Amino acid sequence: MPAFNAFYGQSGGVTPVINASAAGVIETARKYPEKINKVLVGEDGIVGALTENLIDSSLESEADIAALKHTPAGAFGSCRYKLKSLDEHRAEYERLIEVFKAHNIGYFFYNGGGDSQDTAHKVSQLSETMGYPITCVGVPKTIDNDLPITDCSPGFASVAKYVAVSILEASMDVASMCSTSTKVFVMEVMGRHAGWIAAASGLASDDREFGPDIILFPEIVFNEDAFLKKVNDTVERKGFCSVVVSEGVKNKQGVFLSDSGIKDAFGHAQLGGAAPEVVEIVKKSLSLKCHWAVCDYLQRAARHIGAKTDVEHAYALGSAAVELAVNGENAVMPTIVRTGNNPYSWEIGKAQLADVANVEQMMPAEYISDDGFFITPACREYLQPLIEGEDFPPYRNGLPEYVKLKKQKVARLTGVDFAIRS
Amino acid sequence: MPAFNAFYGQSGGVTPVINASAAGVIETARKYPEKINKVLVGEDGIVGALTENLIDSSLESEADIAALKHTPAGAFGSCRYKLKSLDEHRAEYERLIEVFKAHNIGYFFYNGGGDSQDTAHKVSQLSETMGYPITCVGVPKTIDNDLPITDCSPGFASVAKYVAVSILEASMDVASMCSTSTKVFVMEVMGRHAGWIAAASGLASDDREFGPDIILFPEIVFNEDAFLKKVNDTVERKGFCSVVVSEGVKNKQGVFLSDSGIKDAFGHAQLGGAAPEVVEIVKKSLSLKCHWAVCDYLQRAARHIGAKTDVEHAYALGSAAVELAVNGENAVMPTIVRTGNNPYSWEIGKAQLADVANVEQMMPAEYISDDGFFITPACREYLQPLIEGEDFPPYRNGLPEYVKLKKQKVARLTGVDFAIRS
Repeated sequence: MPAFNAFYGQSGGVTPVINASAAGVIETARKYPEKINKVLVGEDGIVGALTENLIDSSLESEADIAALKHTPAGAFGSCRYKLKSLDEHRAEYERLIEVFKAHNIGYFFYNGGGDSQDTAHKVSQLSETMGYPITCVGVPKTIDNDLPITDCSPGFASVAKYVAVSILEASMDVASMCSTSTKVFVMEVMGRHAGWIAAASGLASDDREFGPDIILFPEIVFNEDAFLKKVNDTVERKGFCSVVVSEGVKNKQGVFLSDSGIKDAFGHAQLGGAAPEVVEIVKKSLSLKCHWAVCDYLQRAARHIGAKTDVEHAYALGSAAVELAVNGENAVMPTIVRTGNNPYSWEIGKAQLADVANVEQMMPAEYISDDGFFITPACREYLQPLIEGEDFPPYRNGLPEYVKLKKQKVARLTGVDFAIRS
Repeated sequence: MPAFNAFYGQSGGVTPVINASAAGVIETARKYPEKINKVLVGEDGIVGALTENLIDSSLESEADIAALKHTPAGAFGSCRYKLKSLDEHRAEYERLIEVFKAHNIGYFFYNGGGDSQDTAHKVSQLSETMGYPITCVGVPKTIDNDLPITDCSPGFASVAKYVAVSILEASMDVASMCSTSTKVFVMEVMGRHAGWIAAASGLASDDREFGPDIILFPEIVFNEDAFLKKVNDTVERKGFCSVVVSEGVKNKQGVFLSDSGIKDAFGHAQLGGAAPEVVEIVKKSLSLKCHWAVCDYLQRAARHIGAKTDVEHAYALGSAAVELAVNGENAVMPTIVRTGNNPYSWEIGKAQLADVANVEQMMPAEYISDDGFFITPACREYLQPLIEGEDFPPYRNGLPEYVKLKKQKVARLTGVDFAIRS
């Protein structure tokens, strides 16, 4: 039997290291020519499969594929597009099979978070539901660190490192000028439902002294009075106060501190602006000079400060996905299993996609301090190994030298246009 | 004659490399024990001189002083405090002389921007105006790059590198998801009056393709219609649009796009929030999905991505200030003189403080493109060498290992408390 082609797609919010997983998939697939012919990559993830926009990764040089390991964002394009159920939108599944058949695709690797693993899970069922045999393996990825079963999700640790470094540096700035200038600094970070990223900022506050004095988690209802008291006490004690606020913090009415009212394709509210809102609250009640920053995509794209462990995880999981597939595993996702903390050690495990899809791993309650404003030692013990190690990209003319792929498409064979839902 | 002590102070907004200048001053002073006894550092700049809070730098180890070269913010504390004229506030000058006499201070090194060089200039006149002989040399510093005469100001280049890297990475993120997600990304950077920092973001848009499509400069009155047209055209052409907006952008009424109404100690408006304002304008007229980031202090403290050239400038200027002083120069400031572009070369020059104080170097009009939305090749030629080279700090436990000084105070000798203006 001739080898099948493989489909690989990037899905959901991109990360500093999702391309390292792509490198892991493509480089490992190249080791099994008897089983995998070419890796065809969906332009913009599953959208590329539906619209038959497939990039031929075999035309990319070895050097360029290797350079994906130090290149942020989605080199092949990603998407926010979730397959509906078979009953709701059968046409999409029929179209996928049409494209897979036309391009002799027998493997499906999908690189994403909870929503994306749901897509991978649905595709894995095509064999049963639509009579099209396909080996389907998920590749975990999400800066939100909210995938279940796996110890952590690639992308998170680099964002964690970015926010810890950023609040460390900004707090040193504020500390050095607080006698005559800014007293309160507020930095907003991502994390819609889970406070993992906000928690990671707390890693800066070890013996270095400069880090967040207060962390506002999405898990904790915003208590304005307690917050203002803590800000005031901190400023009186040390002259300034650094605050990290998650975009997902809600007030007691259950409303995001700053809700723009816009929803994305997955139906999630589009957030941003919790930091200026917190600053308004501080200014109004305490009349202290404040500054604020909103990291937004900068944190999610900051490969220049990527965590070495994270890059290694991402690559290993992409590689493991291919190993699982060529060994006949279906409807699974490789995971990170922590085997030791000091020194940190890990190995690759395996989860069923059915157990991963649409399940959010929240932060354990014991990771947040009793007053709700900081992380506990247990949280620090979990987070610390993840941000260790640096893996700087090469530089040219003072800027990181990120790779730009050729992205040559394979010829379209179905002769049919397919319009995706907008 | 026994050697005098020297006073050194950090002033104004801190930078990623102001401590490298401190290292240059202290290490060079240690080479001239016959002329300079100790470097006494003002805690919080001139405020420390007025309040007699003087840090004895001789008690810091050689290793810690050397580590200042890779440590951001103001290690000794900085201030926003401008001396008034002798007529307006004679008591401050009398107090300075009282403290200088008590501590045998014969040299005054002041590390700051335009306002701070004004302070240095006023102190340099003490000899003439108050009969107290003191050798006074300024050390340039400002992320705003608006000091005159010097080719550039230490601090600017590292911020330039940070914003160029950040918009490069964020633009790659947006590009990879624009088919189903964010179409317009807006990043706000500092620069109250001069668009140097905003301009530097344009360095990302070379052959890499990912960088700002539009830069909004404080020098150019915001033209909403032209801006919206360019955003729309860019999104139609390439699927997304990256915008960098300076905090100092004003509308045609001369009002900052987002004016918080609060003024700092120098009487400058405290800004922040131009990015969300720009996003509101885009959303209202074009109904495109937008995201925004505000860099704020992150850009000013980001020593982790410091520019090698900048670190070298900062150190060399601190060192040169001491060399000038021990050679009997007074009321001067060392400068950077560019002697070549390709390869980049520079040497140390000298300016009179009288020519520096309170003079803002604006960006040349020929550095902004005819449509007002981008930089010209001439601007790129000026900026490019400044961001070259990396100078990563050491890391420990996944975070930069920045030094924390002992900051031991010398005994107070005047027996007088002095209250600074609030």
